Parts: sequence; C-alpha cells; structure tokens
Amino acid sequence: MPRGYADRYFECSNDALPLARALYQEMSALPILSPHGHVNPKLLAENCAFADPVALLISPDHYITRMLASQGITYEELNLPDRSGERTKKIPAEQIWQLLAENWQAFTGTPSRIWFEEILTQIFHIELPFDQDNAAEIYRQISRRLEDSDFLPQTLFESFNIEVLATTDGTSDSLEFHKALEETPLQSKVIPTFRPDDVSDPERADWKQALAKLEQSTNLTITSFASLRFALRTARDRFIRNGAKATDHGVPTPFTIDLSEQAKEELFSELQARPATPENAELFRGVMLMEHAQMSADDGLVMQIHPGSVRNYSTSIFEKFGPDRGYDIPARTEFTKNLRPLLERFGFAQNFRLALFTLDESTYSRELAPIAGAFPTVKLGPPWWFHDSLNGMRRWRDATIETAGIMNTIGFIDDTRAFLSIPVRHDVARRFDAGYLAELVSSHRIREADAHFLAMQIAYHLSKDFFRL
Amino acid sequence: MPRGYADRYFECSNDALPLARALYQEMSALPILSPHGHVNPKLLAENCAFADPVALLISPDHYITRMLASQGITYEELNLPDRSGERTKKIPAEQIWQLLAENWQAFTGTPSRIWFEEILTQIFHIELPFDQDNAAEIYRQISRRLEDSDFLPQTLFESFNIEVLATTDGTSDSLEFHKALEETPLQSKVIPTFRPDDVSDPERADWKQALAKLEQSTNLTITSFASLRFALRTARDRFIRNGAKATDHGVPTPFTIDLSEQAKEELFSELQARPATPENAELFRGVMLMEHAQMSADDGLVMQIHPGSVRNYSTSIFEKFGPDRGYDIPARTEFTKNLRPLLERFGFAQNFRLALFTLDESTYSRELAPIAGAFPTVKLGPPWWFHDSLNGMRRWRDATIETAGIMNTIGFIDDTRAFLSIPVRHDVARRFDAGYLAELVSSHRIREADAHFLAMQIAYHLSKDFFRL
Amino acid sequence: MPRGYADRYFECSNDALPLARALYQEMSALPILSPHGHVNPKLLAENCAFADPVALLISPDHYITRMLASQGITYEELNLPDRSGERTKKIPAEQIWQLLAENWQAFTGTPSRIWFEEILTQIFHIELPFDQDNAAEIYRQISRRLEDSDFLPQTLFESFNIEVLATTDGTSDSLEFHKALEETPLQSKVIPTFRPDDVSDPERADWKQALAKLEQSTNLTITSFASLRFALRTARDRFIRNGAKATDHGVPTPFTIDLSEQAKEELFSELQARPATPENAELFRGVMLMEHAQMSADDGLVMQIHPGSVRNYSTSIFEKFGPDRGYDIPARTEFTKNLRPLLERFGFAQNFRLALFTLDESTYSRELAPIAGAFPTVKLGPPWWFHDSLNGMRRWRDATIETAGIMNTIGFIDDTRAFLSIPVRHDVARRFDAGYLAELVSSHRIREADAHFLAMQIAYHLSKDFFRL
Repeated sequence: MPRGYADRYFECSNDALPLARALYQEMSALPILSPHGHVNPKLLAENCAFADPVALLISPDHYITRMLASQGITYEELNLPDRSGERTKKIPAEQIWQLLAENWQAFTGTPSRIWFEEILTQIFHIELPFDQDNAAEIYRQISRRLEDSDFLPQTLFESFNIEVLATTDGTSDSLEFHKALEETPLQSKVIPTFRPDDVSDPERADWKQALAKLEQSTNLTITSFASLRFALRTARDRFIRNGAKATDHGVPTPFTIDLSEQAKEELFSELQARPATPENAELFRGVMLMEHAQMSADDGLVMQIHPGSVRNYSTSIFEKFGPDRGYDIPARTEFTKNLRPLLERFGFAQNFRLALFTLDESTYSRELAPIAGAFPTVKLGPPWWFHDSLNGMRRWRDATIETAGIMNTIGFIDDTRAFLSIPVRHDVARRFDAGYLAELVSSHRIREADAHFLAMQIAYHLSKDFFRL
Repeated sequence: MPRGYADRYFECSNDALPLARALYQEMSALPILSPHGHVNPKLLAENCAFADPVALLISPDHYITRMLASQGITYEELNLPDRSGERTKKIPAEQIWQLLAENWQAFTGTPSRIWFEEILTQIFHIELPFDQDNAAEIYRQISRRLEDSDFLPQTLFESFNIEVLATTDGTSDSLEFHKALEETPLQSKVIPTFRPDDVSDPERADWKQALAKLEQSTNLTITSFASLRFALRTARDRFIRNGAKATDHGVPTPFTIDLSEQAKEELFSELQARPATPENAELFRGVMLMEHAQMSADDGLVMQIHPGSVRNYSTSIFEKFGPDRGYDIPARTEFTKNLRPLLERFGFAQNFRLALFTLDESTYSRELAPIAGAFPTVKLGPPWWFHDSLNGMRRWRDATIETAGIMNTIGFIDDTRAFLSIPVRHDVARRFDAGYLAELVSSHRIREADAHFLAMQIAYHLSKDFFRL
Repeated sequence: MPRGYADRYFECSNDALPLARALYQEMSALPILSPHGHVNPKLLAENCAFADPVALLISPDHYITRMLASQGITYEELNLPDRSGERTKKIPAEQIWQLLAENWQAFTGTPSRIWFEEILTQIFHIELPFDQDNAAEIYRQISRRLEDSDFLPQTLFESFNIEVLATTDGTSDSLEFHKALEETPLQSKVIPTFRPDDVSDPERADWKQALAKLEQSTNLTITSFASLRFALRTARDRFIRNGAKATDHGVPTPFTIDLSEQAKEELFSELQARPATPENAELFRGVMLMEHAQMSADDGLVMQIHPGSVRNYSTSIFEKFGPDRGYDIPARTEFTKNLRPLLERFGFAQNFRLALFTLDESTYSRELAPIAGAFPTVKLGPPWWFHDSLNGMRRWRDATIETAGIMNTIGFIDDTRAFLSIPVRHDVARRFDAGYLAELVSSHRIREADAHFLAMQIAYHLSKDFFRL
C-alpha cells in the first residue's frame, strides 16, 4: 500500500512508520521557535494587508526568482524593483504568476516547490494542484483571501503558534519596529539580532558610511580601534535592552586571529587611511570575529557564524537589483585552522556560545562535527540555505550524528524572509526528523525512549536552551 | 518476494516499483542521443569486423585495464600496444580473456562489470555467467558472433537506435571519417566535437606542434594572439560545416580570466619565446577558455568544460603506453572563483550555452548546483567518468536536484570509447532515473505527472534541446 | 514485522535480510585479525585485573571523554590524569560512571554508545539498559565481574578469538612487553608496529630527544641524513625480528618529495642547526615518507599513512592532559598531488605495499579510489576514527566500491586503545558489511556467490594477505 500524503517526508522504512507518525504528532504540538530569520519587522509592526500573491510569494523569495532566471526569465520580466526601488517594467502580477506556473517543472524536487505548495494547501486551503491551467484560478483564490482581516500579518503570525521570532538587524538599526511591536499585545515575541557585517568588512563599499552610522546611533566618536570596540559594545547593549539574544556574522571565511592591542590599532589606522587590500581586509574581519567572541563571552549574546558565501557574485544583478537576489554562490570553506585562535581563547569560556553554519557540506563530518563534539561552547547550526531541504537534512544528520550526536546541534532554523513559509518550513523539518529518528530506532541504533526525548529537543528545547529564549 | 532481474537498478522502495517500471518502459522506447563520447569515427567509417573479444572489450577500455593493473597484472601481460603501436609481448587473446575472468572479483560492484555483463547478455545473448570456468566458452561464442555480418560496426550502430553520436576530435583533425560517414546511408548521425586542448595548453609537449598543425589545417599563419584567435574561429567554422554542435575543454582547472587584448598578445609572445611556467600556462589556459566562451556566444557551439583530472599521472605508463590508459587521477576542483570572470561576461549571454562536469563531487551541492540554478546559460553535465555509476548517479541527483532541479541538467552522456557499451550505459542510466523519479513520487516530493514529464526530458529532450540536435 | 535485535545494523531492505543473516553467520565464525590498533601491550603482558569500570571503559576512551567535555564536564571532573600522571581531583569512580549515564543522550546515534552498550550486553551479559536509574547497579555488576579470573586481560584476549593483534610502538620502544608475550603460551599473537613519527617531524618538541633515543636504542650515532637512515633501518630490523609486519605514519599531510641525497643532507643539517620552519619541516616529513617507502620496498613492512589530523588542537587540554585526549581535529587533505612523487617511484614496486587512510571523506571517490583502482601497490584502509561508524562505513563503501572495488581495500581495522571494544567493533563492522553485500545482491549489482566470497575476504583474507599475517 503506497504511503499516503499525510505521511509525506517521513523518509523511513514502512517498519518505522508508526513511530514516525507518533513522533511527528508530539513535535507538531509544540510552538515554533525561530531564533534566526529575516522577516522584516516593519511587516509585522505596520500590519498592512499583502498587496497580491506575487508580492507575497514570488518577489521577495530569491530562491524562486533565481530559479526563474535560470530558465531564461529576466528580473525585469518579474518586475523586481531595482536598487532605487523603481520597477523597471510594469508587468501585471497575474502575468508573473502565470510565468511561474509555466516554469513549475524547473522547481520539481526543490524545497521551494515543496514550501510553495504547502503554503497553498496548508495556509490557503487550496485544493487545485498548481500548474499552468489552474494558476489563474489559484491567483484569484489567494487574492480574495488576502483581503480577509485574518490574513493581516499580525493575525497570521499569531495563528502560526510562533513563540519567538528573531529578525536580523544592522549594527545601527533604530529597532523602531521592534519597539512598536513590544507595545503591541501579541502572544508571539519578536526580537532583534545584532548583525555587524557592515562595520566589520573594510571591503564593503559602505564600510566608512557604516562606521559613521554607528557613531551617530551611539553618540560616540570612533577614532581608534578601542573606540570602535566601545561603540560596538554600546550598540550590542542597546540590542540586548530590546530583547536580542544573539549576534550573526556573515563572513567570506571563518578566519580568526589573535592580534595585540597595538597591532589592532595599527590595522584600523591603516584601513582608515588607505583602501583595503584583500589581505588586511581579511585580517580585520578575523580580528572582528575575535572581538565579538570576547563580547559574547562578556554579555552573553549567542554568536552565530555564517561563512562561505561569495556575495553579489553577478555584478550585473547586484548593480541593477541590489543584494540578496539569488546570486550569492558558495565557496569552499575551512574551519579547523581558521577557527583555532578563537577556540583556543573561547572554546571552554564559561559564558560563550557559538553556532556554526556552513554551505560546504564536506566540512560536516571532517571539521564541524569533531569541533562541536569536543568543545562545550560550540554547537552545530542546522543545514543552511541551499541545504535546508530534505536531502540536505539527511546529509547533515548522517554526517554529524555519529561524531557530534544530536545534543550538540541546535534546533531547526528557518532563516527566511518569506513570512508565510515559516510554519511550513518548520513542519517539513519536523516531519523529516520524525522519520529520521524513527528509522534509527527501527535499525536498533537508538532506543524508542531516546527518539521521544530527542524529538522534543529538536523541535523545541535545543533552541530554547541554546539561545536562552 | 525478492525483486527480479528485470527490475534491476531500480533503486527504489517496493511501493515505487510499479511506477519505476512504467517510467522505464517510456524511456527505453526513445532513441539514444549521445552528444559527448569518444568512439573512433574510423571504426564506423571503415566498418571492419572486430578482431576478437579482447580487442573489442578489453584493450580499448581503460576502466578495465587499470583495474587489472591494480591486481598486479602488467600492461605487457595485457598485450597493450606501446606508444608506437607495437605490442611489446605477444600474448594470445584467449589468455588475456581468461586473465580477466580470473580477476573478475576485483570488478565486483563496479560499473565496468555491470556494463561488461550487460553487453554479454543483452548484445551477445550469452546466458552463462562470466567466470573462470565459462570464460573460454564465452570467448568462443563471442568470436563466432563477430564473424556475422550483423556484427559489423555500422549494422550494430543502426541496431542501437542511436539518433546522434558525437565523437571528440582534435583542433586540426581532417574529419575525413565524418565526411565519409556523411555519404554513408545511415539512419544514425555521426557528428564531430571540437576539442582544442592541444593548442590551449602551453605545458603540453606538443603545443607548438599543435599550433603548426592548426596553421596547416587552416592555411593561416599564427604570429599573434589575434591570428591564433582567427585560426581557431576558422577551425570551429570547419567543424560546424561538418555538423559539430559543441566544443569540449579538458583543463586542469576551470580558471578563467579577462585580460586586455594587449596583455593577451604579450602573454602569447612570452609563451612563444620561452618555455611556459606553471603560472603563465595557467593564465593562458584561463584566457583560452574565455576566448572560446566568446566564440561560442558568437557561433552557437555549446561549450563543455571537463576540469580537474591530473592527466598522465604515472609517467612510466604514459611513456610506455601513451595517454588514456587509466592513469589520470582527479584533484580538488574550484569552480566558484575560477568561473566568475566567465560568468560575469557570459552568464546571461543570449546565445551562449555551457555544460559543466566535475570529478570533485564536493562541488555538486556547493558550487555547481547554485551556479546552474541561477545562470540561464549554464547546465550541469551528468556524473562524469568515475562517477558514471549507480552510486555516482544517486549522489549527483541527490546533491543537485534541490538547488538546480532537473531542468538545469542535461541528459545522460556516455562519454565512452567502448562502442558496444553505449546502449547498455544508457540503459543503466535510464533504469536508475526511472527508479529515482518513482521514489520521489512515492515520498510525495513530486507528482506522478512530473515524473512522466521528467523521464522524457532526461532520456531525450534535455540533450536534444541543449545541444540543438 | 519490525526487525529484531538479532538483525541490528543489517542496513538492508527486508528482501535482502535472509542473505544478510547468512553472510553474517559466515563472517562471525572467522577469527579476528587486528593489524592496526593501540592496545597497550603492557596490559596483556602484565595481565593485571582492571581497576574498575571507569578505568576500563571511560578514562582511556577519548571518544567518550571528549563527548562528555562537549557537554560541559571538565576533564578534572572525569578524574583524568594530567601529563605527569597525577589525578588533579579525586572523584570517586562511581560518581563519574553516574555522570556518563546522566549525559547518555549526548551519545545517542554515536558508535561510542553502540560499542559501550554492546560491551555491556555481549561481554558482561548485562540486561538492564544503561541509564541514570540503572547506572549504579550496572557499575556493581561490572565491578564484581572484574574480580573474576576469567576477566583478566589474557583470558579475555583468548576468549575474543583474535588471531593476531598489532600494537603501535614508538621508534625506540624496547618491545619488552612483546618479548614477554612471545614467551607466554597464548593462542593469539601480539605483534608490534613501527611508528617513527617522533623522529620524522622536526616541529615536534621532542624531535631531538627522539633522535637521541634512536641513537641509544640502536647503538649508533646520527650525524647525517645517511646515518639517520641507517639507524632507521636498524630499528625497523629490530621490529621485524619481533614480529612487526607494518609501519604507521601519522602526518599532517601526505606530502612526499624526491630530493637528491645532497639536498637531504643539507636539509637535515639545517634542521639540526636551527629551529624548524613550517616549510622545511614539511619538506623533511615529505622526505621521510619517501625514505620509509624505499625501506618498505626493501624490507617488506607494509606502509600505512594516516594523514590529516591537526593534533593537540586545544593547547590547554594538551598542556594539562597530554596528547590523545579527543582534541585532534581533522583538516582538508590532498592526496593526488602530494602522493605523486611516491607513486612515481613505488607505485608499481614489486615488494611495496601501501594502505591509505583519511579523515577527509571528500577524497574517497575523488582521489583515493582512483589511486587504489590503478596502482597495484596501494590499497584503501577502512573508514578511520570519526568515520568508523555505520554511516561512515556506508559512505566509504558507497564512494569507493565503484572505482576501486572491494579487493583493493583491506579488511576492518579497529584502531582502538579500548581493549574490550575490539570484538564488538569487528562485530558491528561485520554486520554492516553483511547487510551491505546482501543489498548489492538484492539490487542485482552483484551475484550471491560474489557476496559469499567477498564476505570472507572482508572478514579475514584481505587483511591476512595484505599484511602477510
């Protein structure tokens, strides 16, 4: 008897199926913790109705737009706004929606397609399969639904059973929307995350501008490395006062280095005086990771490192449409040697917590699991970005469980700017893990009691404990 | 009930088996497209009977000879011709055949063994299992069959239901056999592929000789980079007139670089004047890839890059027996940074098409799928060489489908010089994909209609469309 | 019907189960060969009773201690002896045992937990599951058992059905315990392995001390590279006389280089005169691998290379507790280019045998299988260290079988200092391989007769033949 739709994504043998179902039931009863994501807090604070299905589900999702681009569709044809916010062409939303349906086969097998269809069925209760023939009717059904008051962002948010949602916010962000949300009577908490990439990377065109903004937002003057550090501490404190539990660091490599105070001052002077070279820029980024590790050990913000993406890989896309448009391509990443200086100093530090993410799956078993399986301060983040997928989760669990176990990982992270996809992403991940754990029991690798315990850990407690939520 | 032989290589659950069978039936009804391979066109043009089973199935197959060598058998004992074409020892073919049978356990689990046995059963209709006891009898049966007129290369070729077979041909190849075949009334088309490796790599001992040959074959003088480029365009045009649809580039790395016209001239002068250094040789290879990308964007030949093999790794084998003897060993390969200059210029170029292959499986999910899933000009070639195998196909599909989907890949490529293995290689791949797609349906990742559509795409249309066959 | 405990770790489909059981029966009837491990020969020679369950199963097992450390437990709390052998705190063994039970969920899914529980059930016949509630009772049961005379090391050893056990011994080790064991009437043989790491790496703090010890143990003076080589040959001869069959080389990278005799002398002088630089240290290590390859070709000791671990990664752990405490972290490893000089000279050498191990799984299919599938002198060692696990074995077999087959691998190696885990490690590996081979038959990749043949090879003959046991 083929497996029914209710058992989807339980990728276990038939023997393990009853236990998979039971574990999934237990997991899905728990609230969602989303300690790392990219939802715009403005969306929730302003609580305006979504414009149309394209604005809701296509335009902001670079997984979808870049796949359409790979099929030969330009971003102009998708009506994506250029850097200034202008839309270059004015294509009707219905037409773009239809274009997606016509190219739906390109998405076959991708998580984007799974999430999209789960949103249609689970959130919009649409029963028609998404394809060329049904696209227009589905567009109408969604449009109608978006006018309902229970489809306003805040109402939706409350219905998703999210306990905590963390956003990602720049060093000098005003956090005005977080403050506004603080005063909104929501059951779900929205907290900021401190992401100081702009002031940490002298190769960014906006580095000095970012330093200036930091001066402004802190009311401090940055004339030295020591004063930069003080400004950063001040900024972090402000985030902490507004509920932040973590920092996030998007770096080309996880290079870290322990320089003397004098060497840091000289490096900073040099970078202030002259354009960065690849070498001193890397040095500075390595120094900044160390500084933030020290600050995390001091102030308790959990440190997250997301390395290895070559950002804005296509200059033409970046110049026309800006960052985060699907043209960031991963590169080989080295952790063992790069992280050693940091781990030498903070690997056993009392208050320090570090979550490591990667786009280079060859590091799972070779570097990351051995590190997380030895240092009490380090835990593995779940499969990131391209690897947040059923096969990606399987490869990640398979490659890490035998060296790091499960207790040295953190729970699922949706990492998304696609608001509606939050509950379905967590649901897909919970289904995967329910099947995975059930299979481990079935093959006598773990006991049934372990599976029940770990299911709760994965779905809730690991994130709760690690991020001190 | 254990699965029968007819269901071999459907590596799916029992639930998915009926659909796997149906998909396979649909796929196997389609003609074969072989847009990249290494069959010698002379074989087909001259249409001479094969000498004996060893000359047919062992000597030309470096997958088989290198495995025998790994068991301690020398190439002299296999009677392989040395570089001058002389056979160093005169071992009777029957004895070599027996040697293979005696070492057959070394091949257990390899695709070589699967293909070999499939050839025996599917093409020669031999029912005895190949082993030490039966080897002599099987030798006799094949020898007898080789005398039949329906075992001449052209008759076999027609029986394989190959629509197009592409060969691989040097820059200055006369294409005489292609011309001869053009005038032979065959239903299957044989087309050349332009492979300019000899003139692109200054570290090759025959580089200057290759340039001289290019001068000769084009009736042009090459005194500058500009004149080299013109000669290459002339040579490509000749290939196009003879039916070519693609170029092929075997490079140590996929390094590309955008140099000024003056810098290219200086580099070429330097290389003409003095022996190449590793640095300026790499530079020149990177320049040549960019030139051919430009020419492909102009003349429409599909560009194929096959990087990452350290060729002629064993000097003693190379010096005695020449290239392509099984002593090419893969090395780590970097695509993201190396290909960036090329993709910056041609990533969205209207007429340009690029197929990427790799021997470094860690690049599948990390670099290749993200690139193919974003750039409309790039598609992924199927698992290459060592990875053209059941596990290799599974790893490739598993690692690429969630980021690049299936529509950003090209169909199966047999890449073989072993003529008889063409139909069985395609058959094994079709079986694998039928099972793979069926399993995706069974686990509710894709719909049944998708599977039928994609099965046709994989077996036929992806190659047809991409190579403009 | 869910699969019973007796069928554990047969990770095959239900169709393949009967064959898996049959293969496992055949394999488990064979004696164990352990040609590479780290059991202390003193333990066997002195034959003293084990002190307590913690001294037996926790303290010496860095897989277990580092996982406890990852949960925030300090090595002081585990009562690990510091470098001088002193125990910093005096924690009662029962308390440490209980600590392990309280953190047992951290081990879920790890081979450490599987081996530990297999030891409890298979060797101590304990029926209670290991957890917080039962820990104290289990401690008592084991303690009682340790007092029995049939739990003395030699009696246990004989009961394990180990035919040969190889230890790992320093260049200048006296081999006194091996000599003592030679005179003990045991059915199982204990042989030494020559591991010259101390004299091969000028970056080790004890390098000169190691050279001095080598002088002492050989009664030779080392004043030149030539005299070092002679001393090494002398030391190897001594090991051979004491039964050694192999050498072992733990190196940061498998770099090899062919230097002239003069260049070697100059390098050695330079290193004697001045502190090593990273560059000349790497050069020297590369020279030493070549020297030992030459000596292996001469004296017949099998060469084993274990590269790619960054040893003593945590300075604080190393300084307090010494080496081999779970703080060695793997790094990316390159074989193709590094090994080429060695393979150019010894790849086809008559008497030479080389086993390659790796912690970098990306090299399995990319580098190691192609090398082992071509060179008659090279075989693949089984998955090492972190990868000696069920998933690790699957990844290794999957990635290597199609290019190198099974006959180019060596049998299972337990690589352990945890004496009691030897039989259970072999048992787990045999179970895995029985299931793996059965599944290959079930999917028609290999024949049933192949599976029976290869099962015997894997369980016994591959190691027997390769190590000339």
